[in-house]
Amino acid sequence: MNIEMIRAARERLTGHARVTPLLSSPFLDELAGRRVLVKAECLQHTGSFKYRGAKNALSALDPDVRARGVIAFSSGNHAQGVALAAREFGVPAVIVMPSDAPALKLTNTRGFGAEVVTYDRATEDRDEIGARLATERGLTLVKPFDEPQVIAGQGTGGLTSGVALALADAAPGMRVHPVEPEGFDDVARSLISGHHEVNPRLSGNICDAIITPSPGKLTLPHMLALCGPGLTVTEDDALHAMAQAFLRLKIVVEPGGAVALAAALTGKCEADTVIAVTSGGNVDPEVFGRAMAML
Amino acid sequence: MNIEMIRAARERLTGHARVTPLLSSPFLDELAGRRVLVKAECLQHTGSFKYRGAKNALSALDPDVRARGVIAFSSGNHAQGVALAAREFGVPAVIVMPSDAPALKLTNTRGFGAEVVTYDRATEDRDEIGARLATERGLTLVKPFDEPQVIAGQGTGGLTSGVALALADAAPGMRVHPVEPEGFDDVARSLISGHHEVNPRLSGNICDAIITPSPGKLTLPHMLALCGPGLTVTEDDALHAMAQAFLRLKIVVEPGGAVALAAALTGKCEADTVIAVTSGGNVDPEVFGRAMAML
Repeated sequence: MNIEMIRAARERLTGHARVTPLLSSPFLDELAGRRVLVKAECLQHTGSFKYRGAKNALSALDPDVRARGVIAFSSGNHAQGVALAAREFGVPAVIVMPSDAPALKLTNTRGFGAEVVTYDRATEDRDEIGARLATERGLTLVKPFDEPQVIAGQGTGGLTSGVALALADAAPGMRVHPVEPEGFDDVARSLISGHHEVNPRLSGNICDAIITPSPGKLTLPHMLALCGPGLTVTEDDALHAMAQAFLRLKIVVEPGGAVALAAALTGKCEADTVIAVTSGGNVDPEVFGRAMAML
Repeated sequence: MNIEMIRAARERLTGHARVTPLLSSPFLDELAGRRVLVKAECLQHTGSFKYRGAKNALSALDPDVRARGVIAFSSGNHAQGVALAAREFGVPAVIVMPSDAPALKLTNTRGFGAEVVTYDRATEDRDEIGARLATERGLTLVKPFDEPQVIAGQGTGGLTSGVALALADAAPGMRVHPVEPEGFDDVARSLISGHHEVNPRLSGNICDAIITPSPGKLTLPHMLALCGPGLTVTEDDALHAMAQAFLRLKIVVEPGGAVALAAALTGKCEADTVIAVTSGGNVDPEVFGRAMAML
């Protein structure tokens, strides 16, 4: 995994991934007490940066391998990215999703033509399900983050470790801080301990997109070398950031996609200038209504 | 008013106006039964394309004249555009706004540092108020559309006549259709009669941003030469389009900014491919909630 792979990914994604705008508002700057720039990856195809990694990974596959189809496990954004990329290549996609994933994400993934297989987030192991189906059907597993070509693709726009690798080359003075929900801060704790810390729970937070069991085997070493410290925000912080993104930037951000902006607005990230990636916008209207009720 | 003025405006706005993305979604295409591309000017500075015309008009003023300050009358989006442009030049701005303008637009215009003077939309004449204040204080009036440098600036992104002039040069095969709310279709009727038709009412529709008394003296001749026929949509059509923009594009659009998308989605614009300008996103949460309730 190196900068050349990210550069190659950028070439592959040119003309496919959308060039999303960097937004700002004097009202947000005032609220945050610092300059806040927002990379609006919620405007990416499928509503999140995950399309980048999926499209890059599928593009890099051997055509004969790709033609047999792909499989992914995801709470919903990687699911949609893989489903759309597979449809663009005209190959089958099977997506393993938690049964409690937001309705919009389940519907959209099916809408992109993928076969969706659901599992229980608390009692079943999505990796095991994914591996079994891949073997049975000859599908290639496209992991959500622990896969070099996915990391390289996300390095052009979203995933912490990929962006950190890209910035280490392009803007070495910048510091990357992962942001997580309180109580689901496996990355923050791993950055302190140096080991793969595990979250005690895998549900019960509105930031569904970023609740993962543990940092990736491939991604943690990059984050240990380049990122930190990790920051945490509450559910209310995320909802408040969604409301401000609505009011000031005119973008729709999902809870898990709003945590970086939340850290900037609440002063948990103390830099003079913060670039927050709003990584996804796939939020059900009911949850969005909760955010707007904070205005 | 000619294409050279629009080109000059584009030069002046480079590095100031945001390059807003052209968004799309396969789900929207399916719903509309045609290819729909959305020019997301709701992501422009101040939340609407109006910043373009205001910034261009202020840039083109003689510096001594500009320094004495500017005045504008507007339901809210031109107001914010002029207020921000004036602040960027460090000159005073007085904005004459209807007393029933959305709260967010009144608050934001004051937030950009402008002095706001309100009037009653039904009984008072905003042109007369604007002219009087301009004379009293030595301010330059920046009209919302009947001003060549405003039309030229908007030609880079939003106003019907300006965009039509730009497209007549750049893409003569394209046809521009103005879209208005039912019952407030002064432009559509004027395009049929060839004269300046007047709206019987000036309030009572959620599309506040595009309720005007009559087409502009300068803009109607361009529209008669280049645009039409005009299309109309209902309030529910606009709310439905706002909901789809939320769900599928992850952008926040106000009712008056959603009418072009509404015309594309309801089949009122029958072209195979439609580019809809979502011209503004300054909507109060309550109205946005009405749109989301349609999902």
